[in-house]
Amino acid sequence: MLRNSLIGSLRQIKPILCSQSLRSLSNGANSGLTTIEVDDKSGIATLSMNLPPVNTLTLNLMHDLIDSINQIECNKSRGLILTSSNDKVFSAGLDLKELYKPDQERLKEFWTIFQDLWLALHLCGIPTAAAINGHAPAAGCIMATACEYRVMLPDFVIGVHATRFSFVVSKWMMLSYQSVLPRRIVERALNQGKLFSTQEALEVGLIDEVAGSKKEALAQCAAFIGTFDKANPIARTLTKRMCRDSDVTELLRDRAGDLRACVDYINTPLFQEGLSAHLEGLKEKK
Amino acid sequence: MLRNSLIGSLRQIKPILCSQSLRSLSNGANSGLTTIEVDDKSGIATLSMNLPPVNTLTLNLMHDLIDSINQIECNKSRGLILTSSNDKVFSAGLDLKELYKPDQERLKEFWTIFQDLWLALHLCGIPTAAAINGHAPAAGCIMATACEYRVMLPDFVIGVHATRFSFVVSKWMMLSYQSVLPRRIVERALNQGKLFSTQEALEVGLIDEVAGSKKEALAQCAAFIGTFDKANPIARTLTKRMCRDSDVTELLRDRAGDLRACVDYINTPLFQEGLSAHLEGLKEKK
Amino acid sequence: MLRNSLIGSLRQIKPILCSQSLRSLSNGANSGLTTIEVDDKSGIATLSMNLPPVNTLTLNLMHDLIDSINQIECNKSRGLILTSSNDKVFSAGLDLKELYKPDQERLKEFWTIFQDLWLALHLCGIPTAAAINGHAPAAGCIMATACEYRVMLPDFVIGVHATRFSFVVSKWMMLSYQSVLPRRIVERALNQGKLFSTQEALEVGLIDEVAGSKKEALAQCAAFIGTFDKANPIARTLTKRMCRDSDVTELLRDRAGDLRACVDYINTPLFQEGLSAHLEGLKEKK
Repeated sequence: MLRNSLIGSLRQIKPILCSQSLRSLSNGANSGLTTIEVDDKSGIATLSMNLPPVNTLTLNLMHDLIDSINQIECNKSRGLILTSSNDKVFSAGLDLKELYKPDQERLKEFWTIFQDLWLALHLCGIPTAAAINGHAPAAGCIMATACEYRVMLPDFVIGVHATRFSFVVSKWMMLSYQSVLPRRIVERALNQGKLFSTQEALEVGLIDEVAGSKKEALAQCAAFIGTFDKANPIARTLTKRMCRDSDVTELLRDRAGDLRACVDYINTPLFQEGLSAHLEGLKEKK
Repeated sequence: MLRNSLIGSLRQIKPILCSQSLRSLSNGANSGLTTIEVDDKSGIATLSMNLPPVNTLTLNLMHDLIDSINQIECNKSRGLILTSSNDKVFSAGLDLKELYKPDQERLKEFWTIFQDLWLALHLCGIPTAAAINGHAPAAGCIMATACEYRVMLPDFVIGVHATRFSFVVSKWMMLSYQSVLPRRIVERALNQGKLFSTQEALEVGLIDEVAGSKKEALAQCAAFIGTFDKANPIARTLTKRMCRDSDVTELLRDRAGDLRACVDYINTPLFQEGLSAHLEGLKEKK
Repeated sequence: MLRNSLIGSLRQIKPILCSQSLRSLSNGANSGLTTIEVDDKSGIATLSMNLPPVNTLTLNLMHDLIDSINQIECNKSRGLILTSSNDKVFSAGLDLKELYKPDQERLKEFWTIFQDLWLALHLCGIPTAAAINGHAPAAGCIMATACEYRVMLPDFVIGVHATRFSFVVSKWMMLSYQSVLPRRIVERALNQGKLFSTQEALEVGLIDEVAGSKKEALAQCAAFIGTFDKANPIARTLTKRMCRDSDVTELLRDRAGDLRACVDYINTPLFQEGLSAHLEGLKEKK
């Protein structure tokens, strides 16, 4: 039943996977928001976020990322490395402007696509690694934790600082964090809205390695992907999904519930005021 | 739904919070079993247990602690530091005499108030820290684990040594321990009835820091509370409760079941004999 | 209810424990597949697997192990040390030949007895420790994780390398691994099919100590069993089972489901082909 339900949930999660309904590789590439480079020798695909100035997760970038992840998975790449074409920022996280005085229908679409993105990355069948070559706050960090391995460059920050702009993360975001870090560390970091320096992230285990350059980071991610060479790929995929099953169960059982709770919370004056102050603060910094 | 249910459970847990049905600050203070000192400059409240000789958790001390925790929470203190006015013992744990040949109604009241105390501390909305300035065995340790941070003075012991007096802790007590320590360490320590020295507790992560004096411990707790300054207080409270939701769910769903199981177990000859021998041993030590 | 359900599950799990329906001690010993030696001084029973060449878990060896575990538990031994009489291999894991082109009824019996063996060891009432005096791959590792403590000799390997022969472990096997190691480490190791060297196993916490010789390993296991001397044995057993309750709940609730999923998966061409290649590879190594 376990394996059956895994295969079942696989079907449920990716019903259109590898079908014509996917945008073609060229379409995705043409948008320019993401680029895919496949190393002919290693068979590893590098997926770069490419939305200036700071890879904010807009609706469009998230759409492109999901398409690209699905394409890479379907093309039987040996692994996926997520990185940024920006050398200061991996991803600045969700587009907070979408959460401020939002159009309700658009907000629902926005949150749903964010759920989709996390599911696509967290349950991606092939080995995944993040080459974190810049800051990775909030959803930037969540995307990194959805990968199986994290290599980071020095002098950047990573973490979920949602409480600093009055946001309360969903339980699946907390579980994504907890899939990497001990429970006690996660609770404290989420409550504080802590942004870890590269060195701090290494010490607690939020990242696995530090790299001297982006090139080195990509090589270290590729080496990690190489550690699966002796594993049967399908058995590996089923095993990975079993390990991650408890992280996604609640979300998959009630995605509408998560959406409703999130939309309701975003519409509270508490959050709108906190976000407003945060956005003002960001403007002043510039 | 998540955030809604959090707000819902908040209502459920603290229906009378911040209402007139609370004892007034002066009443609590007058009992003398606990004292509250609020630092005007920092806004942090220090809650001291003050029941000679060893801060045994009697019905009265637990009542006072719950009132004090609620008062501090309602008065919008910036944080709560739990400590002892005794310089040898933080708290010796539950009043075991209440468990020996108990009056059944009183035993039910006793266990229910202990559930209440843990819930009040574990779900306390403001930042909490324990300045453990003396021994913290059994329920003394559980109270410390219900806080978010632990600073301890050298040469004391902390741990849940229930199996040494034949007691089997409730699942929520185990989960409180597991919210701080890895599962493997918790199982072993509970099975052994292990009391960790200050140094051992630091090594496994049961405490976060060692302090040279009580004054230093209070300062370190205050510094921890200061780490939340950038977080929105309400978002922080909701995030903390989400992180702790799975610890309390089972208890909140069936408090009567936990009470019944506990009372049934306490009434077994096995436990009564084990407790009797333990109490004899304590007498001889004096 | 908790303690009641513990006692309930105890009854459920071991309904025939300590009754005449157990094979007698001599029968078990006579089979020669396992031997039990009880140290008169310490009261600790050493259970040795003794099936040349590599303690493959055949139906017969698993039957004998279950009988031996139950006997040791019933005879009120002070503890159980699981080891091997082979100085190169602790146990090579399940008899993979039983999984290759299997007879369906025999396969069901085989998997059911493996479930039984894990439950018997994981929930064994007395303290358990593994003296890992040789390689412990796959089910050999699972048996070690079902014990409460692990001491290993240098220059051997331990780990669940199932993905290397296309197998997907059951959730309870993953949970047994997770009862010892952090979630992140387990997922990675299971996906890779990683075999840890003795030194690597010590570093991540998969084993607790390294010993210079088998004699030393047995002494270290005995010392661990001695750490429970101050605990009431029945309270200890109930506490251990509470700590392990969540590991076994799913399996106990639906053993038939786990069996069905496993049998279905083993019958897939994917697995049969992967296993065939693996068995060929093993032959070539010889």
